[in-house]
Amino acid sequence: MSEVGFTTMGKAANGGEIETIGVGMLGYAFMGKAHSNAYKTLPYMAWPPPLMPLLVSIAGRNEEAVAEAARRYGFSEAVTDWKAIVADDRVRLFDNSGPNALHSEPTIAAAEAGKHVICEKPLGRDAAESYETWQRVQAAGVKHMCAFNYRFLPAVRLARQIIESGELGELQHFRGAYLQEWGTTEGEIWRFNKAEAGSGALGDLAAHVIDLSRYLVGEIGDVAAMTQTFIAGRDVDDAVESAVRFENGAVGTIEASRFCQGRKNHFTWEINGSKGSLAFDLERLNELQYSEGNAGFRTVLVSEADHPFWEFWWPQGHMIGWEHTFVHEIHHLLTAIRDDTDVAPHGATLEDGYRAAEVCDAMLRSAQRGAREKVNYR
Amino acid sequence: MSEVGFTTMGKAANGGEIETIGVGMLGYAFMGKAHSNAYKTLPYMAWPPPLMPLLVSIAGRNEEAVAEAARRYGFSEAVTDWKAIVADDRVRLFDNSGPNALHSEPTIAAAEAGKHVICEKPLGRDAAESYETWQRVQAAGVKHMCAFNYRFLPAVRLARQIIESGELGELQHFRGAYLQEWGTTEGEIWRFNKAEAGSGALGDLAAHVIDLSRYLVGEIGDVAAMTQTFIAGRDVDDAVESAVRFENGAVGTIEASRFCQGRKNHFTWEINGSKGSLAFDLERLNELQYSEGNAGFRTVLVSEADHPFWEFWWPQGHMIGWEHTFVHEIHHLLTAIRDDTDVAPHGATLEDGYRAAEVCDAMLRSAQRGAREKVNYR
Amino acid sequence: MSEVGFTTMGKAANGGEIETIGVGMLGYAFMGKAHSNAYKTLPYMAWPPPLMPLLVSIAGRNEEAVAEAARRYGFSEAVTDWKAIVADDRVRLFDNSGPNALHSEPTIAAAEAGKHVICEKPLGRDAAESYETWQRVQAAGVKHMCAFNYRFLPAVRLARQIIESGELGELQHFRGAYLQEWGTTEGEIWRFNKAEAGSGALGDLAAHVIDLSRYLVGEIGDVAAMTQTFIAGRDVDDAVESAVRFENGAVGTIEASRFCQGRKNHFTWEINGSKGSLAFDLERLNELQYSEGNAGFRTVLVSEADHPFWEFWWPQGHMIGWEHTFVHEIHHLLTAIRDDTDVAPHGATLEDGYRAAEVCDAMLRSAQRGAREKVNYR
Amino acid sequence: MSEVGFTTMGKAANGGEIETIGVGMLGYAFMGKAHSNAYKTLPYMAWPPPLMPLLVSIAGRNEEAVAEAARRYGFSEAVTDWKAIVADDRVRLFDNSGPNALHSEPTIAAAEAGKHVICEKPLGRDAAESYETWQRVQAAGVKHMCAFNYRFLPAVRLARQIIESGELGELQHFRGAYLQEWGTTEGEIWRFNKAEAGSGALGDLAAHVIDLSRYLVGEIGDVAAMTQTFIAGRDVDDAVESAVRFENGAVGTIEASRFCQGRKNHFTWEINGSKGSLAFDLERLNELQYSEGNAGFRTVLVSEADHPFWEFWWPQGHMIGWEHTFVHEIHHLLTAIRDDTDVAPHGATLEDGYRAAEVCDAMLRSAQRGAREKVNYR
Repeated sequence: MSEVGFTTMGKAANGGEIETIGVGMLGYAFMGKAHSNAYKTLPYMAWPPPLMPLLVSIAGRNEEAVAEAARRYGFSEAVTDWKAIVADDRVRLFDNSGPNALHSEPTIAAAEAGKHVICEKPLGRDAAESYETWQRVQAAGVKHMCAFNYRFLPAVRLARQIIESGELGELQHFRGAYLQEWGTTEGEIWRFNKAEAGSGALGDLAAHVIDLSRYLVGEIGDVAAMTQTFIAGRDVDDAVESAVRFENGAVGTIEASRFCQGRKNHFTWEINGSKGSLAFDLERLNELQYSEGNAGFRTVLVSEADHPFWEFWWPQGHMIGWEHTFVHEIHHLLTAIRDDTDVAPHGATLEDGYRAAEVCDAMLRSAQRGAREKVNYR
Repeated sequence: MSEVGFTTMGKAANGGEIETIGVGMLGYAFMGKAHSNAYKTLPYMAWPPPLMPLLVSIAGRNEEAVAEAARRYGFSEAVTDWKAIVADDRVRLFDNSGPNALHSEPTIAAAEAGKHVICEKPLGRDAAESYETWQRVQAAGVKHMCAFNYRFLPAVRLARQIIESGELGELQHFRGAYLQEWGTTEGEIWRFNKAEAGSGALGDLAAHVIDLSRYLVGEIGDVAAMTQTFIAGRDVDDAVESAVRFENGAVGTIEASRFCQGRKNHFTWEINGSKGSLAFDLERLNELQYSEGNAGFRTVLVSEADHPFWEFWWPQGHMIGWEHTFVHEIHHLLTAIRDDTDVAPHGATLEDGYRAAEVCDAMLRSAQRGAREKVNYR
Repeated sequence: MSEVGFTTMGKAANGGEIETIGVGMLGYAFMGKAHSNAYKTLPYMAWPPPLMPLLVSIAGRNEEAVAEAARRYGFSEAVTDWKAIVADDRVRLFDNSGPNALHSEPTIAAAEAGKHVICEKPLGRDAAESYETWQRVQAAGVKHMCAFNYRFLPAVRLARQIIESGELGELQHFRGAYLQEWGTTEGEIWRFNKAEAGSGALGDLAAHVIDLSRYLVGEIGDVAAMTQTFIAGRDVDDAVESAVRFENGAVGTIEASRFCQGRKNHFTWEINGSKGSLAFDLERLNELQYSEGNAGFRTVLVSEADHPFWEFWWPQGHMIGWEHTFVHEIHHLLTAIRDDTDVAPHGATLEDGYRAAEVCDAMLRSAQRGAREKVNYR
Repeated sequence: MSEVGFTTMGKAANGGEIETIGVGMLGYAFMGKAHSNAYKTLPYMAWPPPLMPLLVSIAGRNEEAVAEAARRYGFSEAVTDWKAIVADDRVRLFDNSGPNALHSEPTIAAAEAGKHVICEKPLGRDAAESYETWQRVQAAGVKHMCAFNYRFLPAVRLARQIIESGELGELQHFRGAYLQEWGTTEGEIWRFNKAEAGSGALGDLAAHVIDLSRYLVGEIGDVAAMTQTFIAGRDVDDAVESAVRFENGAVGTIEASRFCQGRKNHFTWEINGSKGSLAFDLERLNELQYSEGNAGFRTVLVSEADHPFWEFWWPQGHMIGWEHTFVHEIHHLLTAIRDDTDVAPHGATLEDGYRAAEVCDAMLRSAQRGAREKVNYR
């Protein structure tokens, strides 16, 4: 591997006062916890932080629970209506960690109130909703990010650098699968309800695969997909299977399922180029497999690399965890806000959120119509 | 894992004379070597052998080379016309290890001359040729086998036993990929010529994936496929990518490519059922990964199992190699001939050869027409 | 695996005021960063925390650097003399994250001033210094912990539960190796100086192996060791190799080296019992390998278990990182302080720190004298 | 990795008559089967063979069983007294595949009768018996080989080439362990009897580790060992644990045990040099792990290399099995006989058999005396 030439993240070592940024958050469950941890951790791990987050206000429907969340994570205030955050002048960054059905309206409202926004994925419940969200936020002129956090895995950034450097040659294949096992879970979970979730494994898991394939390989041209629902009466897909062709001629498969016993959080991808191959497994997120030419796969412990995400952490071989992707992601967003730089290409914007949704919709159409479908961006 | 209850292969311990069987072979290259080794090894590894093979005659177009092959492997005679073998009364078993274009006619002729036949895969260059071959051989009333040797991997037989026992529950997913790296090889190779090979990665590699998926999961109902040729001017596919749906409702992907740097002979498959999962990698062929329920994957060193293929070999943990699949396969065929038992279900018959070809054709049609295609058996 | 029966950590859900505890820290380098992160993370990850840490004061020799560290981690005050912390009434817990030569005196002084103490390993530069430290701190009647953080890996705690439950049967083997690669680093590093470090790979790396072997297998009876220094002029060991016998009859090897190219932070151990085996690799810290009987090794993703450390984090399969061991460790200590319970057996006390040092000394004696040495605890 | 520069084995392509060599074998159990397979396979796999083996005579104590073995493997004659083979003028090569107690006397007798000899390991039941055997065979002037077959693993030969080329730099560590699980087997097995076996895991398993360490790293200078017998009343060791120092300054550990549940045939070794590291696991014998410098370990599928053992087999990625080591080994011996070349250094001679025994004896002395022991070659 030649020198991959990372530029390190700018670190102002001025020692002067660090500018602050007020953060308002919608949601305090799984994603709210992960985002809160990022705001609290990044200031001392990436010292000095680009901006010092102040946790101003957190919104949730359950008054008692949101009050407890505020106390736990250190938000100054808890509210039961997200519109209070939109109206709060102390808030410069609106963090939407809520469920899918609450992605679009609050994100648009916050942006139109002049706040920068970060919104969890999938951006909308379908491509139309995602498009509307992107367009209106874009028109508001604020910084915007769709929280495809896996772009901020050290292994993924390293893969992107290797590909950009040309070391992999012409890209010929991408095969990605995101497999989990909890799909038989009973009870009323919003993720199994189309009105609330939009889709099943598709928007929840395949969207991650699609985003990384776009980040690493390029735009997807067309798809030939099938979906399957294993549990009778459920109105979302339990699994999606697709052949895909990229605009640059690479072909491959994209798959997602919640019905794979023994696969806890098994997001794997492999890219084959004319000069080498890369392979990754999220359950071993500190490793990237790299075959230079046909030399055989080398376990690149990404902790060893001179890497923009690594300077924050520990010496080589001291593994980082899943949640650190959010630290890197929000650090990236705060830097873009401070410096007025682009969130793209390393960060996913709402446009990227929309584009992933458009691919998801093409897969659904293909599955329904039994035909190969072009991805047509509006 | 409960007891998988293998029945051991019948071993006549009579000590009496072992009946012989005359073998005539077409081809002496890669497959001819692998088959010859099997005939020579099985009599003492699987002692006593069901029938004692006598290597009577071998056919090839190059007079000098085929004479050398006869000397090397111990065939009594070398001929340059395979029809001499068909006409040879000493030959009871015709072994077709020749290239694809020579699969159909000699195999039919041998069967119609009353000889049992084993033919390398793919059975024909397309489904029509494969169907004709199967039908005429079947009509001749001889034993017939299509040499899908991977059915005779210990790990695959063990997987079949686990599935048959119901331990995996309802089957929900199959994902198989056969990846190699040598597709950029230059020069005039018959495998890159449609008239001689029929197809590219499809018939050469995907056919193996299809056969194992049929053996382990069941019949494929429909496919949504794409093909790609990376080298300009080549008239066969370099890669095939397909979503598949099985008749039992399982869904998944099947893929094959010769353009995956670092992947030497990387045939991987995974099966997810409602009660557990199995995973396999041909490059670690002595291992089967098994998650009982969601307990996590256990490396079952198949050498440890009480296994029908293992009794021939070594104590547990003493690994066997790729070529041993042929030893098991031909042992199975000789047993069927001796006992007049069915080659199916563990051995692939010419019907299985035809059925794999029909799935391949459906993938080609799907790729050409841009539509999902049903697999229609004639 | 039968139910391992973890008892979950007590979580008072009273919602009332959380009692605070003032923390004073010595050192702000690698370990200071890891400990600071733990104090800052645990309150919201393990909500509510047993005690709410208040970062009162941090000490370091470089005035400017320690002031920056205080600002970075949020300590109220920075001092250049650790005695100021010992004299500070706001401090109830003294955290010694300083270099080896500064372990003994400040820790004793803090304890004798009535503060609870946690001290990085190795406790002292030799067994005598460690013994003195333990004895005097013990006499002071405070809670004390030696920061052998690897006891707080989820995989290690799970291993201990499996062993305690009897599932492994009689323990027969322990083999542990801690291998790194940076030993050729040039320059004046205190770790290469005997006066400052006490020993080389022995106290730095082998001490971890020894502590885990004592935690999981039991007391070591005798050792037969060799040491090696590869760099001329260096007065500490670069590597130590030892055969070991435990008091319960188990035998094995313990090894540590800083001269293993490609091994970043490769701490592996394996335990064989009459009924099963366990294996672990720190570079894959979210995995524990477990063979029940001779069934073959299963990858237990420890994130899946119902586990006392896991409730703080994420759903199964969302990997945690190296630094989370410190979060668990300090949570354990704060719980012991709040409830006045024993730090042992899951936490290492200063007695454990001393005992590891005694084993290290026995290895050095064995290496020097060329004889097997008994571990004689004072 | 630079070009490792294998020279291919000489293949006379003369097409003329191939010289034959009469083989007489003692023993027809596990090792007899493995050696017989090698004699039968090598002529066509390594075509043309250096000499064409003729299986003349096989000896065993059980008249019926040895007759069956002769029939099975194709020996012309079965005898119940090995002296008949020694007296048989048709035999030029005496293959001693018998149990340990029958290694010395028949091997000496055969050599003194002018026959070349290959003898299974361990050469003798102790160093004295091994020395006597080597000396008398050496004096007879015949070719001699001790069947340390793991030298003929493709991965091991490749490792030797890498080391010889200097790519690993100065060697600093060797750690090798040979672990099996069957030690609790009940019944009267000669391997548990000192008079018949000489020692337990030491001569059976550790001898293999010692031989490979000598082949790859160099002579062992001194050892600090412990042994353990877990089953009361058994008079051989069940496990041996040793620290070792090589004459070139490398240090490490050597271990062998039959009490490791889940470890079927787990022979692992790792070598660390100043410029890189190699690692190997016999249960994945087609793989060699190689870290060039600190680049991280690359899985070298040894089948891909331009390798002297590989030309006999299959295209890259088509795995070979454990028994192929014997094919390579006996091919090597026949070549040495035909060309009157040295069996060393790639083949183990009886001197190597003796030297391994001397190291084993030093480990036993060290274990008994509780002191580090020098390996003193006579």
